[in-house]
Amino acid sequence: MNAAAVIVDWGTSSFRAYRAGERGLETRAAEAGILSVGDGDFESALRRYAGDWIVPGTPVFLSGMITSRNGWVETPYIETPASLADLAAATVERRLADGTRLRFLPGVCQRQPSPDVMRGEEIQVFGSVAADEDALVVLPGTHSKWVDVRAGRIAGFHSTMTGEVYAVLKAHSILGRLLPEGATVDAAGFRLGVEAALARRPGGLLHDIFGARSGVLVGDLSPSDAAGYLSGLLIGHEIREGLAAADGRSPMLVGSAALVGHYRTAFALAGVEALAGPQDAAVRGFRRLGLELGRDQDLKA
Amino acid sequence: MNAAAVIVDWGTSSFRAYRAGERGLETRAAEAGILSVGDGDFESALRRYAGDWIVPGTPVFLSGMITSRNGWVETPYIETPASLADLAAATVERRLADGTRLRFLPGVCQRQPSPDVMRGEEIQVFGSVAADEDALVVLPGTHSKWVDVRAGRIAGFHSTMTGEVYAVLKAHSILGRLLPEGATVDAAGFRLGVEAALARRPGGLLHDIFGARSGVLVGDLSPSDAAGYLSGLLIGHEIREGLAAADGRSPMLVGSAALVGHYRTAFALAGVEALAGPQDAAVRGFRRLGLELGRDQDLKA
Repeated sequence: MNAAAVIVDWGTSSFRAYRAGERGLETRAAEAGILSVGDGDFESALRRYAGDWIVPGTPVFLSGMITSRNGWVETPYIETPASLADLAAATVERRLADGTRLRFLPGVCQRQPSPDVMRGEEIQVFGSVAADEDALVVLPGTHSKWVDVRAGRIAGFHSTMTGEVYAVLKAHSILGRLLPEGATVDAAGFRLGVEAALARRPGGLLHDIFGARSGVLVGDLSPSDAAGYLSGLLIGHEIREGLAAADGRSPMLVGSAALVGHYRTAFALAGVEALAGPQDAAVRGFRRLGLELGRDQDLKA
Repeated sequence: MNAAAVIVDWGTSSFRAYRAGERGLETRAAEAGILSVGDGDFESALRRYAGDWIVPGTPVFLSGMITSRNGWVETPYIETPASLADLAAATVERRLADGTRLRFLPGVCQRQPSPDVMRGEEIQVFGSVAADEDALVVLPGTHSKWVDVRAGRIAGFHSTMTGEVYAVLKAHSILGRLLPEGATVDAAGFRLGVEAALARRPGGLLHDIFGARSGVLVGDLSPSDAAGYLSGLLIGHEIREGLAAADGRSPMLVGSAALVGHYRTAFALAGVEALAGPQDAAVRGFRRLGLELGRDQDLKA
């Protein structure tokens, strides 16, 4: 990678830029996701947050929802099994008026056994594993990803809507109405929720979440524990279903320290020790991508 | 039951009154659920919709959310196993200023294997089965109920938040944003969703619902099928989890003709023939309750 390369992880709700130069790594983060760029003028937004890093000749890499239909340049999906070389080969280039070359990464899609998509997480996956490694990489979040890595390639994956389901149930369902104002996830409620999910009670997830309300009504659960209980139920279900397809491998967790902590607790209740992946997985991934692109002289900046 | 008894099934969003007199059955329905009675003046609302049926001496029975904390008179829950006689014994009486006697039914709660509650459905269950019958009664809806009836008693049950989860995901999640304006449940999408749920793909329900979006993005699913697909997924999961605890019994469906139709389709895809219960289950239940109360002279109007 060119010493002054700029990499941008630009999602729905956040903007992160990295400069992996010879003097080390610099990072910038702003709450300037693509949804906040109302007029579609992504170039101005990029220059506002990282313009001082970009001069003609600076290679700029972009991934995340900035490459989706609602972003700047829509890139195709590459299909599983997908290697880092496949990712590099499918980047889409766009030149700005001053000659700056932007490279937009593709997303990854899977067709079987069930259709699934990711945009942005793939670079974190490649930053978490070695070139020929086998691993089960779990990226918890709004739409968690469970990624099956075989010989360094993304062999398959599945997403779960855990974080988003928690948010919409809390904000818009009958469950939210029983929570105290400003309720947060507390450790005791979280643990009870994970245990309930792992207990595989009749009725499944759609029953278990109703149980957050029933538990409060019959006095088994305190209202202040209910938010943690609901979070634990959903994460517990995600983990129980994910582990069923894990072939006994220990998952490697990649994400924010807080989320990784919650998930490690939940995995431990399921009897599984989860590993913590690198905190700078995205940067590592872009660095590997830069090396990959560097092999092809035509693609060099 | 006294020939002129009035029965009221008063839920969160609807009001239904029945007069099961000697000249047959009269029914009234209004979109006047307890949430629409803003000032808590339930007596005026009752008189507005059924006042001409009520004179001093008319016995009036009320069930549903009108007996909850947010209703008129909060009644206790009776615990499973619960018989019709238990229900009759736990009614709570309130006299109006003119001497009219109101009887509020209790709800039913379960403590093991998981806490659960119902208010209003229990009378439909007793109206769907004979005195000593064994049955699996399924009442689909916002919070579906699967009720295990043994020797005429409610031995146990579980609720699933199927209808509410569908509504909040459609209105407030990323899934709703991919649906065309005014999207409705179509038969083809519904069938695909049920089949996906029954296929038990890795990742469980939290993955399958994300698949409604992935399917559209990779071109496997048309946006116009996505609402039906989501509905089918959720009902498919409800059924698959419920049947696992059904001991091989055929479920009897009690509810609106439209919902019962959807569920019969889904059960058929799971290889199970579901029976249609009586359309007038609530009235039958109240009639049985009246006979039960009539045995006790002290409770007679």
